[in-house]
Amino acid sequence: MKSHIKSWDRLENYLVETRLLGSIQNTLYWDQNTIMPPSGSEWRGQQLSLLARHLHDRQTCNEYVDLIDDAEAELASVVPHEIVDETDIASKTQNLALLKQELRRQQRLDSSWVGYMATAKAQGYKLWQEARANSDFAIFAPALRLLISLRKEQSTQLAEPRSCWETLAQPFEPDLSKARLYDLFLPLRHKLPELLERVKGYDNLHKFSWDIDEKDQILLSEKLLKVWAKEDASVVVSRSPHPFSITLGPSDFRLTNRVVKGNPLSCFLSTAHEWGHSLYEQGLPSNIHQWFPWPLGNATSMAIHESQSLFWENRVARSKEFSERFWSDFANAGAPFKSGIDMWQAMNPLAPGWNRVEADELTYGLHILIRTDLEIELLDNDLEVDDLPAEWNKKYSDLLGITPKNDAEGCLQDVHWSEGQFGYFPSYLLGHLISAQFSESMSAALKLEGVNSPDPIGFCIGSGKESSLLAWLRKEVHHYGRKMNAEALVEKVTGSPLSSSPFLNYLSLKLERLADTT
Amino acid sequence: MKSHIKSWDRLENYLVETRLLGSIQNTLYWDQNTIMPPSGSEWRGQQLSLLARHLHDRQTCNEYVDLIDDAEAELASVVPHEIVDETDIASKTQNLALLKQELRRQQRLDSSWVGYMATAKAQGYKLWQEARANSDFAIFAPALRLLISLRKEQSTQLAEPRSCWETLAQPFEPDLSKARLYDLFLPLRHKLPELLERVKGYDNLHKFSWDIDEKDQILLSEKLLKVWAKEDASVVVSRSPHPFSITLGPSDFRLTNRVVKGNPLSCFLSTAHEWGHSLYEQGLPSNIHQWFPWPLGNATSMAIHESQSLFWENRVARSKEFSERFWSDFANAGAPFKSGIDMWQAMNPLAPGWNRVEADELTYGLHILIRTDLEIELLDNDLEVDDLPAEWNKKYSDLLGITPKNDAEGCLQDVHWSEGQFGYFPSYLLGHLISAQFSESMSAALKLEGVNSPDPIGFCIGSGKESSLLAWLRKEVHHYGRKMNAEALVEKVTGSPLSSSPFLNYLSLKLERLADTT
Repeated sequence: MKSHIKSWDRLENYLVETRLLGSIQNTLYWDQNTIMPPSGSEWRGQQLSLLARHLHDRQTCNEYVDLIDDAEAELASVVPHEIVDETDIASKTQNLALLKQELRRQQRLDSSWVGYMATAKAQGYKLWQEARANSDFAIFAPALRLLISLRKEQSTQLAEPRSCWETLAQPFEPDLSKARLYDLFLPLRHKLPELLERVKGYDNLHKFSWDIDEKDQILLSEKLLKVWAKEDASVVVSRSPHPFSITLGPSDFRLTNRVVKGNPLSCFLSTAHEWGHSLYEQGLPSNIHQWFPWPLGNATSMAIHESQSLFWENRVARSKEFSERFWSDFANAGAPFKSGIDMWQAMNPLAPGWNRVEADELTYGLHILIRTDLEIELLDNDLEVDDLPAEWNKKYSDLLGITPKNDAEGCLQDVHWSEGQFGYFPSYLLGHLISAQFSESMSAALKLEGVNSPDPIGFCIGSGKESSLLAWLRKEVHHYGRKMNAEALVEKVTGSPLSSSPFLNYLSLKLERLADTT
Repeated sequence: MKSHIKSWDRLENYLVETRLLGSIQNTLYWDQNTIMPPSGSEWRGQQLSLLARHLHDRQTCNEYVDLIDDAEAELASVVPHEIVDETDIASKTQNLALLKQELRRQQRLDSSWVGYMATAKAQGYKLWQEARANSDFAIFAPALRLLISLRKEQSTQLAEPRSCWETLAQPFEPDLSKARLYDLFLPLRHKLPELLERVKGYDNLHKFSWDIDEKDQILLSEKLLKVWAKEDASVVVSRSPHPFSITLGPSDFRLTNRVVKGNPLSCFLSTAHEWGHSLYEQGLPSNIHQWFPWPLGNATSMAIHESQSLFWENRVARSKEFSERFWSDFANAGAPFKSGIDMWQAMNPLAPGWNRVEADELTYGLHILIRTDLEIELLDNDLEVDDLPAEWNKKYSDLLGITPKNDAEGCLQDVHWSEGQFGYFPSYLLGHLISAQFSESMSAALKLEGVNSPDPIGFCIGSGKESSLLAWLRKEVHHYGRKMNAEALVEKVTGSPLSSSPFLNYLSLKLERLADTT
């Protein structure tokens, strides 16, 4: 069966080359955001657009279609008694299905649409920046209208058995439906404002009248990653205007942080967050048929990705036990902490604000509910673009009890829509839910392993044993790669369907404990 | 004449794309040497090799050949009365000639040779590292033999009217011949050992028993580039194991430095050196037909490149006037300087050592003479590889009066031959000669501009007016790009053929002045 091996290997070689080019794009992006001088941007834009065209061609050309067909025929021709490894066949079958799904999507889009979309994105981003600087939504509105109509056209061309918004959400959250999302989010819609009401009057150190030197913030973040056993041989940290985590090769992981003036905990927390993303990438499978260039070697959804970053940011770095360990380091750097409780309060402000990125665990979900509703309205229910600012402000007033002062603080705050990205926002909130549900299972497993505490995760954090938490995530979550979609993975790991209860329970308990400290 | 415009533009678009890919390679190289974690190297190697194959295909394929033919036919079809701009036609003609020359070279090499060479280079580099670590030339010898035979094969395939060594030197120094090189270097061969003899006994602070903190060395280098008006919008400085300067786009310039333990001036001097390279790149032409993707928009030779880096390192940073300005900054950082003279002496140790990279202005040339002789012997005169260590040591003993203790300190010290790079070394020394000859013309020009001093360059340095020196270099040297080869450029700028006299005169005078200080 020599030809058998050959077709499959030829496909793999092709995918490796595609991934090499994709990771070159990522390297250019990394450089652009961490060190490139401003005047390099025009040429860099041309480099990126050249690679994007190459990649699009590679992923739709006849050569690639033939490679997939050949590999599929080869796989089908394997006779049962020749099968040595069932898992091997299953992985191959699943990889092919995922590749074909993506190919079908690429093929259905006509190339003129691809061109229009690229231009509309660039134009949208430009006008959004201008609109935001002037706090004037009207500057951005025509570009947003165009982006929405192009996305509707895309959905028509893709012709999937889903609504337009659902179609757009697929790349981030495969198989997600609006119905399922409503079910999952409904309890949050009722409970989060209730919890917010409950903490009214709770006051703490969050109105940072103090700050920490840039240098010290970087040192504290470095210490954090040292404590969390970052391997210098494969991971590099740098600065960028917006923190991100990115993978440049099967053993080349990068993340960034930044120092925000007047927000002395931001650098530390964003480091924890990006580290969670990076850990997931570091833990993805590297077996045959499940490594870097194959679909199965990749992250399964953005919700799972966010569950990992949010676990390390919120569950670990924002925990009381963690503050008990780190408060004196912060105090030495100038924070007005006299105890772990002080730091814990500062880490958990629990106050509504207009800004999603700086929101705490309690209010974050409300920001997402608003965005999710609005983008579904825009794409599936004919909400007029011109009505967006008013709708936005009304929802903020209803759910968070505050009204943004202007468009810049309101519906212009996020970059996503400016580049025509719709369908991503729910992943953030799903990540909170998944993190909480995973944490319940992790706690149960730690108890079985002999961690004798009502809160095994807190106990591990308090005793500097985060490695036990990571070991569980590696074994139960990371190494599955894209074998299952987010919800199937949650059910496999926790034994129950995804639900908002673990998150709401966790949050209520945390609020109670925090309230006890004031 | 619509088709006229079209062919030329199609060629330009093609060259832009080639340059985009080439500069992506450079970006990967930059990342690899400044920040990539060690475990990223395997994947990075695959990315680079993929791009190299793409680039080789682009530069030899029929599409490219046709583009050149069409552009040439188009250019030939321009009738005299239609010519608006003679320079335009001349530039086009010259660009085409250079493109065709390079194409011819690429086409004459058969592709199996290209494959063998790539493997032999990688293997050579690997074995050289091992040989150097063990200080055992025998480990590297077979790889060197193979590299030499492949280079001889290359020369046979290229079939240029030159010796093998001369053929290999062409990419670095177009039109250079051995005969010319002997003429140029002969006076150095006699005079440099004589000068070395003269400074015997001259003693100074060079045996650094002191050091400067890494942080302070970086700060001093930053101050240097601030004084020299680095534009942050287009230039970025980083660290790397070996300092280099690289251009990533028409307005994206990068350079690196490093801190060497026990060598407190190394970081500062290498910053000055790389800055000189970068200034040349920054000053290259950006006119139509003479910008980045066209041959004429590029550096003309490595000797000219080195003349620029050596000018800023030696002529400026190692000058007495410069030390007078900077010694107190160094003293504040911990250097044992009590005057500018102290720093000037430390900047100019004038002592023979086995190491080329750390050599001073006086002994550097001797290191190059030895390498140039030996590589010519190896490629053109059948010197046996096995005899290289003995020959090396003999020449060191004859010319520098020292004998390397072992192969690592001897013929294994440089990376060049390990990757089969022959013909580059003379450019370093030619750079010294050119820098000195340019400096004489620069001095004359400054006098005409009213700088009233027997040493106008020193006067400008002393009064912080390096911008006058740069202005002259921009106008007289940089903006020519590849319009002339090195020697033609020297003659155009200085009115005389290249000669070693200006360098020897400069050096003698400097030694006298230095001797006066002890």
